[in-house]
Amino acid sequence: MSETQFTFEQIGVIRTPFDSPTEMPIQPAGAKDVVGTITIEDQYKQGLQDLRGFSHCILLYHFHESPDTTPLEVEPFLDSEQRGIFATRAPVRPNRIGLSVVESEAIRESELTVRGIDVVDRTPLLDIKPFVPAFDVPDDAETGWLDASGSTVQSMESDERFQ
Amino acid sequence: MSETQFTFEQIGVIRTPFDSPTEMPIQPAGAKDVVGTITIEDQYKQGLQDLRGFSHCILLYHFHESPDTTPLEVEPFLDSEQRGIFATRAPVRPNRIGLSVVESEAIRESELTVRGIDVVDRTPLLDIKPFVPAFDVPDDAETGWLDASGSTVQSMESDERFQ
Repeated sequence: MSETQFTFEQIGVIRTPFDSPTEMPIQPAGAKDVVGTITIEDQYKQGLQDLRGFSHCILLYHFHESPDTTPLEVEPFLDSEQRGIFATRAPVRPNRIGLSVVESEAIRESELTVRGIDVVDRTPLLDIKPFVPAFDVPDDAETGWLDASGSTVQSMESDERFQ
Repeated sequence: MSETQFTFEQIGVIRTPFDSPTEMPIQPAGAKDVVGTITIEDQYKQGLQDLRGFSHCILLYHFHESPDTTPLEVEPFLDSEQRGIFATRAPVRPNRIGLSVVESEAIRESELTVRGIDVVDRTPLLDIKPFVPAFDVPDDAETGWLDASGSTVQSMESDERFQ
């Protein structure tokens, strides 16, 4: 393996009510009441210690249901124009790593129950990080092409464009 | 390669003033004025289109300077007790993927200038995503063990504990 490639291991699985990437909320903001269950591999469960105190966590996962193509411009769910892939959250990216901020509801041994989950059932989990506003929330943020369309994210559902 | 392993490709490199993980700010909040330069591989530069409108972006990268060990509990920079690895942002994680929210200052062809960068020089870049408060900022967030110590993050520097 070359020095510019990195291999990561699935550390758990995310179970959700969404069987396919179609008709799914496109972001946690649109999935506020959706509950999911994360099961961590036994050898990693000790790492969940102390996560209980954090109300939210950041999940990193593999977009396993997305095709292995890497267009550099896509038409995102929230727009009708082509946008550079790094200016979107589309799953068909050069490295198909997804990121969701979710509410941490309960932790019991190797099982973490989360609320506000927007991923396909059986998504492979790569990492869990505590969400820390002091680290993760800038004072103010502007959102480019999304400004005109951001208000629809709560109700928008995905379609087949990234399958 | 088994179905529980995923290979990701370096898509660019992050240049910063920090030669080593020691005496570095431990989070972007402590590196507000630190400027870094990201150079994207030529074949991906088209993907930077439209990122210009976003004031902040999320960088995912490989903790290349961290040892390849995976303790499940660590003593984080901001605490003096052992904490579960998934309740910390420590670099010695099962999958050494780092995440930083930075200010996007300028984009010129394949080069992105960012402010508030807290990574070691020559860190391999895995992904850039636009930072979108509607997706990434929950209404309220509690921060567990960090509550007592979070106020020091702006001035705290790293030491040798994760090398």
